[in-house]
Amino acid sequence: MTGGYWRKNGVKRGIRVLLTTHGSWFWLCLRRIPKVNSRVNRFLINSSIYTMETRPPALSTKSTYTSWDSLHDREFSARHLRGEDDFAPDTKPDKASVAALFERPPGTQTLSEGSSLLFPFFAQWFVDGFLRTDPSDPRRNTSTHDIDLSQLYGQRKVETQALRAEFGLLKTSADAEGREFPPLYYDSDGNVSESFKDLPMVLESVDDSKARTTTTLPDAVKRTLFALGLPRGNIHYGLAMMSTVFIREHNRIAREIRKHHTWDSDRIFETTRNTMIVLLIKIVIEDYINHITPIKFPLFMESGIGLEERWYRQNWMSVEFNLLYRWHSLVPSTVKVGGQTRPLSELMWDTSPLTEHGVAFLFDEASAQPCSTIDLLNTDPSMLDIEQTSMYVARRTQLASFNAYRERCGLPRLRSIDDLTSKQPARDALTSCYGDIDKVEFFPGLFAEDVRAGSTLPPLMTTMVAVDAFSQALTNPLLAPGIYGPDTFSPQGMQAIRETASLEDIVRRNTRGESLIPRVSLALP
Amino acid sequence: MTGGYWRKNGVKRGIRVLLTTHGSWFWLCLRRIPKVNSRVNRFLINSSIYTMETRPPALSTKSTYTSWDSLHDREFSARHLRGEDDFAPDTKPDKASVAALFERPPGTQTLSEGSSLLFPFFAQWFVDGFLRTDPSDPRRNTSTHDIDLSQLYGQRKVETQALRAEFGLLKTSADAEGREFPPLYYDSDGNVSESFKDLPMVLESVDDSKARTTTTLPDAVKRTLFALGLPRGNIHYGLAMMSTVFIREHNRIAREIRKHHTWDSDRIFETTRNTMIVLLIKIVIEDYINHITPIKFPLFMESGIGLEERWYRQNWMSVEFNLLYRWHSLVPSTVKVGGQTRPLSELMWDTSPLTEHGVAFLFDEASAQPCSTIDLLNTDPSMLDIEQTSMYVARRTQLASFNAYRERCGLPRLRSIDDLTSKQPARDALTSCYGDIDKVEFFPGLFAEDVRAGSTLPPLMTTMVAVDAFSQALTNPLLAPGIYGPDTFSPQGMQAIRETASLEDIVRRNTRGESLIPRVSLALP
Repeated sequence: MTGGYWRKNGVKRGIRVLLTTHGSWFWLCLRRIPKVNSRVNRFLINSSIYTMETRPPALSTKSTYTSWDSLHDREFSARHLRGEDDFAPDTKPDKASVAALFERPPGTQTLSEGSSLLFPFFAQWFVDGFLRTDPSDPRRNTSTHDIDLSQLYGQRKVETQALRAEFGLLKTSADAEGREFPPLYYDSDGNVSESFKDLPMVLESVDDSKARTTTTLPDAVKRTLFALGLPRGNIHYGLAMMSTVFIREHNRIAREIRKHHTWDSDRIFETTRNTMIVLLIKIVIEDYINHITPIKFPLFMESGIGLEERWYRQNWMSVEFNLLYRWHSLVPSTVKVGGQTRPLSELMWDTSPLTEHGVAFLFDEASAQPCSTIDLLNTDPSMLDIEQTSMYVARRTQLASFNAYRERCGLPRLRSIDDLTSKQPARDALTSCYGDIDKVEFFPGLFAEDVRAGSTLPPLMTTMVAVDAFSQALTNPLLAPGIYGPDTFSPQGMQAIRETASLEDIVRRNTRGESLIPRVSLALP
Repeated sequence: MTGGYWRKNGVKRGIRVLLTTHGSWFWLCLRRIPKVNSRVNRFLINSSIYTMETRPPALSTKSTYTSWDSLHDREFSARHLRGEDDFAPDTKPDKASVAALFERPPGTQTLSEGSSLLFPFFAQWFVDGFLRTDPSDPRRNTSTHDIDLSQLYGQRKVETQALRAEFGLLKTSADAEGREFPPLYYDSDGNVSESFKDLPMVLESVDDSKARTTTTLPDAVKRTLFALGLPRGNIHYGLAMMSTVFIREHNRIAREIRKHHTWDSDRIFETTRNTMIVLLIKIVIEDYINHITPIKFPLFMESGIGLEERWYRQNWMSVEFNLLYRWHSLVPSTVKVGGQTRPLSELMWDTSPLTEHGVAFLFDEASAQPCSTIDLLNTDPSMLDIEQTSMYVARRTQLASFNAYRERCGLPRLRSIDDLTSKQPARDALTSCYGDIDKVEFFPGLFAEDVRAGSTLPPLMTTMVAVDAFSQALTNPLLAPGIYGPDTFSPQGMQAIRETASLEDIVRRNTRGESLIPRVSLALP
């Protein structure tokens, strides 16, 4: 380890990182010993979370001081650090400065060596369920703050009702071969289907000034769009294929339950939903987080984890968590779909690849090609609007500096922009924008940091993702002892939970009879 | 100890009760040793709470099975035990059977030897803030589930706004001597004051069938009624005097804060409210609960208590907590007001004693006379309607039997009605109503149990009150480390908290210049 390593991590954190990210054989060995594996799992998860102070948060984006309302009104976002009055030099970032920091110059995209295109597809589909900002006021949070699979079920009862069918099933549409897809949003006359009028579907890009873009979708494309719990679920085929397999899995489990019980539709539906939420959390911990984390011990989902921990507090999504998850630089400028290489911008709001190529094929194909990397200067120009919105959110909520957040996480403040990144173009862009490391804003700083060897994300992002992700996923009441069990999931639901450790398990059992048995992985082969 | 004692308590619980309710000198000694007192405090509070399973509750009154909604929709009540299909023989209790169990025969009221009339006054005012049932559907809960002093501030923002004045103050009215009272609800023309139209005031009795009673209040009485955060806060002078001193204390602290800060009205108001909520919790633990509990160690409020405990979970008021707090038998049939003995029924919806005799005098007078006792056959006939509603709530939510709840609390099931109560009239009433101890319903059973020497409440009620009271009061975010401190309360608020250990402290500093310095106590002299 060079001097730079210790300067950036401090001694204590530096040692912990070194120990947990090396010696695979040792950690895999621990993973196999009953009881010991549970202790190690808890220790690693707890120490990840305790790098920051735990909820309840003293402040939210609602006011600059603590009030009864600011402690309770979850229509605003929680925040990890007090706002800095001086840290919003101009509240509205100018487009040129954002472009200078984020825009991927033509032909320069950096591709990942470890992560497949399925990684950003899953990440976006997963976090869009609970990270939601009011476009008209970035201090306001429109999330339920829970991992509740609103992707499938919507946020409000009226949405759930619109998406449900009889016998506890979710509505679907079928292609010529009878394979299930989400139901269509438009009816055959080209009108929004009566039963989906209450769904808050977004079918076009929205820029940061709230106005819809002037481009509207051609009618032929509109008629392929799905009615989904996720308002932006049609944005590209990568999200739509996730919803499709999860809807199929819901219906598969609901049919299994119906075979064994005389329950009414509501009870079948609710029991299936309980099961589906746990399946998602299990995949998130055991497949997705294990892909992200550089820790060599394979973490796992356990009922009752965190029961006696002070991080086990009511969920409240933070503005920082929301921002650090804006991984647009993971998305390549061109992707391979159905064997053809196509520019991403051409694929927006088009779900036709699903019915054309089939879900199994698309999962396999997305698992075989790389995504790009988390970085400055690596966002496709078509998504610069969104980066601008993110910069605006950070400034409107007066987030403290990147270095202030490092300190909050127990990491030493960086001393120079050169310590932040070893890449000369990024150094130049940051220097011309900020001049000084202490002036670097939280949002671009997160993306600028050099990724450690063996890691997927830069260090501060890794640290902060872990705090909120673990402490908001593992508080799910369905994991609490006294709730986690066959009374809540049914024996059929319990079996589905036992039989699932990865996204691949769910995809494979819901694509039987398709053209191939897909390899499904967030990692490249 | 007789064999009956061990039969009713079991060995383990019996020993704990014996140890903690004897040896005052020992416990008082521990209370004085720094650090040790904190450990003892935590141990006693934790072991009180852990007699039942902790939140999140697997079931609510919403459905008979666990669903995502039933785990989140706090418009229904939590429940500690699954409903028993067989335990609602007739859902609507007939009035005669309720009267047979609860009605106080003329001239037979049992008076307390230890508790003053102030005890039920404070208890009712305190719990009416967070125990609220939808009269049209007893499964529904209209509480905020938090100790948020909605008694002063209302539940919704529109109510708070209606009750606020400028400079962070609450609105008041003044009598001839300039003393502050809550503002009047009616204007001088006899109409509801325009600014209070949004307050959900209840100004007449409501019976269990939702219909208002036919009696309406005379205009002269109506014009003395206050605009309050508590819908039924005008029901008698005992509640109105509580609101009065707490409004005075709010305004006193707000004026203190304004002297030392240049804050706007909102910030003064919110900082005062933060302080007031903590003052209430401090009084509840150190004055009220210490009066109720037979434990000889004086419990105290500590910031950060419960931080690493599994009972520290989001509040959710349970239907059982709501029912066990219906202490109507504590209210005597006649009370002394302004020196005169008057029947209680004559004093309903009349707040005139406040302005007539002054708050100091009424607190002193209520502290000097006894209340009656928690018991069957000891409810004033004017309140039988409410007992009937409570029985209906219990049946509509299919609460399990009294013995099932004893078991849930780790107490042995009682073997006979004779074990439940030593009083012959109550034994006769229970036997004729139920025949068998296992058929005794939860609600009357709670009130029937013999009170142990030195206790205020019967044993199962004491046990269950402690579980919900501690675990829902001490989760208040204002007590969390990182929030509890001068940033949240201001130095003036911190001083008020330090200077308050009892209701008497608050009453005395807000009744200066009145006819006497009151003795204020939940206990008789």
